[in-house]
Amino acid sequence: MALGIGDDAAIIDPEHIPAGQKIVIATDTLVAGRHFLEHENPADIGHKALAVNLSDMAAMCARPKWLLMNLTLPDINQKWLPGFQHGVGELLQKYQVELIGGDTTSGPLSIGFTVLGLSSQPKKRSDARDKDLIVVSGQLGSAAFALNNPGQCSDCDAQLKRPTPRFDVSEAVKGYARAMIDVSDGLLADLGHICESSDLGATIQLEKIPIHASIKADSAWRDHVLAGGDDYQLCFTIASKDKDKLPTDCAVIGHMESGEGVHVFENGQKLTVKRSGFDHFT
Amino acid sequence: MALGIGDDAAIIDPEHIPAGQKIVIATDTLVAGRHFLEHENPADIGHKALAVNLSDMAAMCARPKWLLMNLTLPDINQKWLPGFQHGVGELLQKYQVELIGGDTTSGPLSIGFTVLGLSSQPKKRSDARDKDLIVVSGQLGSAAFALNNPGQCSDCDAQLKRPTPRFDVSEAVKGYARAMIDVSDGLLADLGHICESSDLGATIQLEKIPIHASIKADSAWRDHVLAGGDDYQLCFTIASKDKDKLPTDCAVIGHMESGEGVHVFENGQKLTVKRSGFDHFT
Repeated sequence: MALGIGDDAAIIDPEHIPAGQKIVIATDTLVAGRHFLEHENPADIGHKALAVNLSDMAAMCARPKWLLMNLTLPDINQKWLPGFQHGVGELLQKYQVELIGGDTTSGPLSIGFTVLGLSSQPKKRSDARDKDLIVVSGQLGSAAFALNNPGQCSDCDAQLKRPTPRFDVSEAVKGYARAMIDVSDGLLADLGHICESSDLGATIQLEKIPIHASIKADSAWRDHVLAGGDDYQLCFTIASKDKDKLPTDCAVIGHMESGEGVHVFENGQKLTVKRSGFDHFT
Repeated sequence: MALGIGDDAAIIDPEHIPAGQKIVIATDTLVAGRHFLEHENPADIGHKALAVNLSDMAAMCARPKWLLMNLTLPDINQKWLPGFQHGVGELLQKYQVELIGGDTTSGPLSIGFTVLGLSSQPKKRSDARDKDLIVVSGQLGSAAFALNNPGQCSDCDAQLKRPTPRFDVSEAVKGYARAMIDVSDGLLADLGHICESSDLGATIQLEKIPIHASIKADSAWRDHVLAGGDDYQLCFTIASKDKDKLPTDCAVIGHMESGEGVHVFENGQKLTVKRSGFDHFT
């Protein structure tokens, strides 16, 4: 289906794409020192870098098919490559994604991934409607907890190091989900993108957001849940009539409404952001 | 046809792609200090970075349609961006390419371009046949001359700073060209790729390669013509029966043959590589 590495370009033949499928393309750059640390396990770096990119496919309800990989490597760091490739290769195999091109350049360490996938119903951020229910998959805040409290919660550490793109959820809900996004920058920021794109506001209840029991050990746990990124769970909206179809791993945490911005309540009390993070509005 | 910037991914609908067209994808990373210098005119950098990537489309006989742009920018360098975008924007407009996605990251300056195009007859490096004629477009060695002798040949300086992807040539010859590549790493290296991929050798005559008259002022001119990169002309093979169809800006410089490697003659004398560069074999 695709001409691979070793020519000026890769080739995909649209005649081999099933009717009704659209091509979905996501691209990400990850820079050493900013998105990952050079001394981290290179297989973990490879896994996470690709998982982050694949998560964009899940957020579009697309199945990933082809990958372009652009690596910029310091000359001294060639031994880093086999570990990295192992981490990437595991995920490529798991999701049956074909590496069709890319380049390797000498320079400060960074990773560029471009994934192409197919979707019959790509989900946009702009398709939420007034009164839609807001749903999240899995648990939020685990990755941010792990970043701030390494070694204190092995599930959280795994969530930070080796996130899983939620294709299981996107596949299950693609028939009825409306707007969808993955939680990469934190729930408030990402749900905020849905609000802006859909020209709506949102109200959510903190106590309805599934969290790992361990994270309350950190007094800043609300910040991790609401503003911590890197969980790569899905956040999407559905019509209330579709609520009973949701997979067990999904929770309704609020609803879309006219207006703008994301309003957060905890047991009926409105939360607001203070200098120290999220707190009850008093 | 494509959902643009501002969602998790861009979308292309294969139903809008004309029958028989294939999708061709090329990606390049350009790193400051290696592929360009930070103090260069940012509009020139933008122009060249995109032209280099578009040249891969020309080398596949594809028409570029969509661009993903991944920029990594140092925080201090935000004022660099408008000039760069101007250089990129001019070429996007000229070739009617749509910017459909990408990202901007903070880090050491680098540019990643991924271009998607369409081609009814994508040309591969592996399709040369024994006795094919070897053709190049334009003049070779100008960019390398300019790099080594700045300000001494304005045409050469322009070729180095603002190369033109040769869509005019690829469009004219797409019906009969066999293997094709763009001359980015130097003629010997790039023709060498055709030889390897096609499992053949090649013989070329130096005196048949079109050059700018000015470059003979540099005693290393043979090196510039044979091994200088950055000209972004096309090198391709054709059946000898198709010779008279070639555009005027193209020259036959040799032929494919059984064997391996590229053999270079100058006025009947074999050239070889010495420590100082190319010289007559004596």
